[in-house]
Amino acid sequence: MSDLDLEAWTCPAPLRDSPTVLLGHGAGGRLSAELVAHLFVPAFGGDADALGDAAVVDVGGQRLALSTDSFVVRPRWFPGGNLGTLAVNGTVNDLAMVGAQPLYLTAGFILEEGLEVAELGRLAAAVGEAAREAGVQVVAGDTKVVDRGHGDGLFVNTAGVGLVPVGVRIGPTRARPGDAVLLSGPIGLHGMAVMSVREGLEFGTQIRSDCQPLHGLVAAVLAAGVDVHVLRDPTRGGVAASLNEIAASSRVGVVIEERAVPVPDDVRAACGFLGLDPLVVANEGKLVAFVPGEQADAALAAMRAHPHGQDATRIGTVTADHPGVVVARTGIGGTRVVDLPLGEQLPRIC
Amino acid sequence: MSDLDLEAWTCPAPLRDSPTVLLGHGAGGRLSAELVAHLFVPAFGGDADALGDAAVVDVGGQRLALSTDSFVVRPRWFPGGNLGTLAVNGTVNDLAMVGAQPLYLTAGFILEEGLEVAELGRLAAAVGEAAREAGVQVVAGDTKVVDRGHGDGLFVNTAGVGLVPVGVRIGPTRARPGDAVLLSGPIGLHGMAVMSVREGLEFGTQIRSDCQPLHGLVAAVLAAGVDVHVLRDPTRGGVAASLNEIAASSRVGVVIEERAVPVPDDVRAACGFLGLDPLVVANEGKLVAFVPGEQADAALAAMRAHPHGQDATRIGTVTADHPGVVVARTGIGGTRVVDLPLGEQLPRIC
Repeated sequence: MSDLDLEAWTCPAPLRDSPTVLLGHGAGGRLSAELVAHLFVPAFGGDADALGDAAVVDVGGQRLALSTDSFVVRPRWFPGGNLGTLAVNGTVNDLAMVGAQPLYLTAGFILEEGLEVAELGRLAAAVGEAAREAGVQVVAGDTKVVDRGHGDGLFVNTAGVGLVPVGVRIGPTRARPGDAVLLSGPIGLHGMAVMSVREGLEFGTQIRSDCQPLHGLVAAVLAAGVDVHVLRDPTRGGVAASLNEIAASSRVGVVIEERAVPVPDDVRAACGFLGLDPLVVANEGKLVAFVPGEQADAALAAMRAHPHGQDATRIGTVTADHPGVVVARTGIGGTRVVDLPLGEQLPRIC
Repeated sequence: MSDLDLEAWTCPAPLRDSPTVLLGHGAGGRLSAELVAHLFVPAFGGDADALGDAAVVDVGGQRLALSTDSFVVRPRWFPGGNLGTLAVNGTVNDLAMVGAQPLYLTAGFILEEGLEVAELGRLAAAVGEAAREAGVQVVAGDTKVVDRGHGDGLFVNTAGVGLVPVGVRIGPTRARPGDAVLLSGPIGLHGMAVMSVREGLEFGTQIRSDCQPLHGLVAAVLAAGVDVHVLRDPTRGGVAASLNEIAASSRVGVVIEERAVPVPDDVRAACGFLGLDPLVVANEGKLVAFVPGEQADAALAAMRAHPHGQDATRIGTVTADHPGVVVARTGIGGTRVVDLPLGEQLPRIC
């Protein structure tokens, strides 16, 4: 086994800056991206630019989508969902983001000694129910138990397999100047729902997570004949991270109209209270879609006709200017750069 | 979301016996089996009897094998392997146990804040190297970070996809009276290698884990035209757990010759020291095969001609007597029941 010599490493500075793992390495922002690009991709092989939510591989002439996610959300129960619903919809949505029809899930449970069996039962039931709602089957599982004090109750990993329809080519490198940038609905609900429970905050109304499966919405847009270029569900790192990743992978610029981004009043209030930009807050039931400009109206009509996309709206445009950079036109007529968040603003949000 | 009412539960006594998760629930023994049968299977649907190492599903006319495993071994480095090699070979072998050609893996990393980036790099490199050796590609990944004190350095989940060749039907319900029970080589090496490091034990010689991929060995047996009925890699719970699970799923009895089971001297000495039966100690590079009695010699010849099966041997026979029960003929002419271990003898062995 060849040992990796950190001193001989060719990776750029950021990974060297911290000799130990930081919470920010899991936040879906710049530190996460650097870990993937400079540690995992060199180890596993592959092309960092082509990394989307799910991989598309060929098996005997069919194109399968594969994806995996671990879920470590705290608390495990929050308004609108729980660790179990998140574990299903998170992976289902990753498959949906390459246009796949999700078919099968695997589920790996890492239990901490002392977890209540009754809660495990409720979360397993939630996984089963969410799977049935999404039309996928949990076909393989695994359970490990770690000794008390070496875990945190329950971590769940799901992996998923889906079938990509013939002719569908959705991927992070396909954004083109002139593409319309669409958003399927209001943002920030999942992150603020979890934060409100975790921090014991009261924001007047109860904010509920938007946790829901998105493959039906994607299928509706594809059925409308739209040549979808890129899809992404803006989870960790929010819309800001998704747009930055796509801009970087496709080497294009993105311009969004800040006022066009739907942010519910209670989310805006909560974000103001916590000093967060709603654009970096996680969602679990929304997608951004890059489609040819002339097909934007057709795509929006298809999304709005679907129960999970009724508030879909156009938030921006792809430009050949400033490749790799996302800018927002602000309400007062200026522009600001929407940066990839560096590290951790909302730890353990999913 | 329907809450599960523990009091209204129809599950038999064992799960009620402990209101909290015990280490034994992850040990691959009776507690693990009860958790699967009475908690996960009712939640997810499916047939507990048909649960093998991997699920076989149909995707557009092709039969795919799917499997998942989480790895929480402690320590992460041990003679003969590490958490990374284990994470690859464990899932590759689960796929191999239904006769599949492993193709793709996903890898989910749950890091604890404070883990050294250099060690993460070495383990990621080990994953990549083991994958290349096994001829599989890691195509999707995920990284989560939990706050210090809420994890244990690194947990890795892998899920795998393989293709089951046409005509191959290997599964835990297919054992038949008259089948020969074969073992691909000496047992107990992985468990004792990990224990020796963990407990700081010296057994004279260094015991090395047998961690290795097994799909080549399986393919060799299938290529010899053997109608393999059942395969199982005896990891957690060892050969005892594997034989008991197969006996229960196929509703047959199993008789093994205790003296025919190859146990290396140093493993036997270590087991004696720790008070363990070598039959319950985990392996990570061995398989048990149930094949028609008349094909036993052909199967053994094929296994012995493969580098990973040179010490393959016949250890027993399937009988119609005592369905669900495994007995061993002891060296002194008696017989003893080889029980499914109840709970945890070797925590966090994989």
